[in-house]
Amino acid sequence: MKKLLNNIANTETEMIDGLCKAYPQYVRRLADTGVVVRTEKKKGKVALISGGGSGHEPAHGGYVGYGMLDAAVAGAIFTSPTPDQVYEGIKAVATGQGVLMIVKNYTGDVMNFEMASEMAQMDDIAVDYVVVNDDVAVKDSLYTTGRRGVAGTVLVHKIAGAKAEQGATLAEVKQTAQKVIDNVRTMGMAITPCIVPAAGKPGFELGEDEMEIGIGIHGEPGTHREPLKKANEIAEHLLEKILADIDYSGKEVAVLINGSGGTPLMELFVINNHVHDVLTKKGIRIYKTLVGNYMTSIEMCGFSISLLRLDDELKELLDAPADTPAFR
Amino acid sequence: MKKLLNNIANTETEMIDGLCKAYPQYVRRLADTGVVVRTEKKKGKVALISGGGSGHEPAHGGYVGYGMLDAAVAGAIFTSPTPDQVYEGIKAVATGQGVLMIVKNYTGDVMNFEMASEMAQMDDIAVDYVVVNDDVAVKDSLYTTGRRGVAGTVLVHKIAGAKAEQGATLAEVKQTAQKVIDNVRTMGMAITPCIVPAAGKPGFELGEDEMEIGIGIHGEPGTHREPLKKANEIAEHLLEKILADIDYSGKEVAVLINGSGGTPLMELFVINNHVHDVLTKKGIRIYKTLVGNYMTSIEMCGFSISLLRLDDELKELLDAPADTPAFR
Repeated sequence: MKKLLNNIANTETEMIDGLCKAYPQYVRRLADTGVVVRTEKKKGKVALISGGGSGHEPAHGGYVGYGMLDAAVAGAIFTSPTPDQVYEGIKAVATGQGVLMIVKNYTGDVMNFEMASEMAQMDDIAVDYVVVNDDVAVKDSLYTTGRRGVAGTVLVHKIAGAKAEQGATLAEVKQTAQKVIDNVRTMGMAITPCIVPAAGKPGFELGEDEMEIGIGIHGEPGTHREPLKKANEIAEHLLEKILADIDYSGKEVAVLINGSGGTPLMELFVINNHVHDVLTKKGIRIYKTLVGNYMTSIEMCGFSISLLRLDDELKELLDAPADTPAFR
Repeated sequence: MKKLLNNIANTETEMIDGLCKAYPQYVRRLADTGVVVRTEKKKGKVALISGGGSGHEPAHGGYVGYGMLDAAVAGAIFTSPTPDQVYEGIKAVATGQGVLMIVKNYTGDVMNFEMASEMAQMDDIAVDYVVVNDDVAVKDSLYTTGRRGVAGTVLVHKIAGAKAEQGATLAEVKQTAQKVIDNVRTMGMAITPCIVPAAGKPGFELGEDEMEIGIGIHGEPGTHREPLKKANEIAEHLLEKILADIDYSGKEVAVLINGSGGTPLMELFVINNHVHDVLTKKGIRIYKTLVGNYMTSIEMCGFSISLLRLDDELKELLDAPADTPAFR
């Protein structure tokens, strides 16, 4: 394992501190927790909180700030944060308008965020939540009942965050968040694995000419392995699965080409070149495109494509200003 | 070689098209060239142009837009753009206020940008240039007489771009760009190499427990190799070299922790955590920090630290708005 780290056991805490020291104008850490909150608490609006295991940087701490999240709760790498950590986050950001939790669909995450919301409700904090399950690759998975929550989650942060910033009610912000979830689909793949520092070895192995299609953001198995193909063929295959899942015909979409952490930006642009052409040829209009490392898997090399069907409300909220360490 | 590409020979062109298709609101490609320009030409200001070999994405095309560059000229991967390509770029963005070229100090780049400026001057376009040489690692190098231009170049783009946007003259923009160059120092390292697609194999090899200190952004040799150390020790060593080069004591600085392309953001934040502490302990005040992939070397795993000494002018220009695909 070749990594730029110190004492492995301190990795998560050094990472969170390193984020907060880089961007003190945006974020600070709640002492003795894995919770990152806005430096200045925003009052008079619904508070948004997300999180999950670490290892997906800049998700989720990098999305704390104006127009997106109010708090992000980081567990150990690829491990759900505990209910008490989420509860600390809720208490820190709660306003009279209530708190919406954006939870990726993993059994541990859903359970722990739910328990935290019950704890907060005993304090008379209004808490509700949505579960993101945008991955079309597999129905159930290693850590999931139902589909996994992957890169589309960032679009939920962006759009629900803008809605909350406009002063919408908890029910309204939840409804908009759910609309994004209902309209976003993602599928990914990888050519190399990632190494959880504490494990010290790759979570899976791939042959020199092999790729995994439909892989999850923790390296969980996807639909199958096959010989590595050209980028355009891979992109076409992922798009085919996404487009078969819900009807995008004649719609405007947002496209997210997400890198898994170790993938050079060069390759992501090459992929976007073809994704753009395929969608255009199918009469699907691209309203906005994002290319980069938004929801990573440590140093895994691979990518995912997310397509979000848009309406006027979602377009306006997608374009609304955001000012966070990783999304502006 | 495991990469997400198509026909290797088309990589640069697919990459540039993929960038322009992702961000048509910011950039477009000059037909049949490797030149990326702002979608809408900005008149009435000094035009800024930069570029160099491809493989450093998002540099330089990702920095074309409001408050930064007017054009970026991309050569083949790790290869200087030809004079005629640079000349096309100059002609496309030239205004009555003149053109400033920001050139990284590599023999081929300097020669080809100089030749292009001579061609443009025959068209009565006022062209001047600065040469960025921020790398403190080595005096001369494989491709360089004098020091190499590396990640500090992005800070030159940002600050000179803001100065030009304010309506400064060509001489004034050049003076400010040169002030950044005089005050920015960088040093990098790597733990894994990168593969130029057309070469098909790594440009160098490193043992499983070995790292290269002072490496260049094309994988050129640095000062030495040694066994991999802890991230904090590496950061201290790089900082020591930077701090020994010019006097930062009692100054405010901008810090850029730049990833080489394949380095997970997790590790860059861990590194920043210690860099922040070391500088603070030395009484050097951190005004602003940037952490991410700003000047990459394809999929190389490694990082560099850049420190820019600030004065009031540089602080104001660093904070001025920018709106480009990769820097907002």
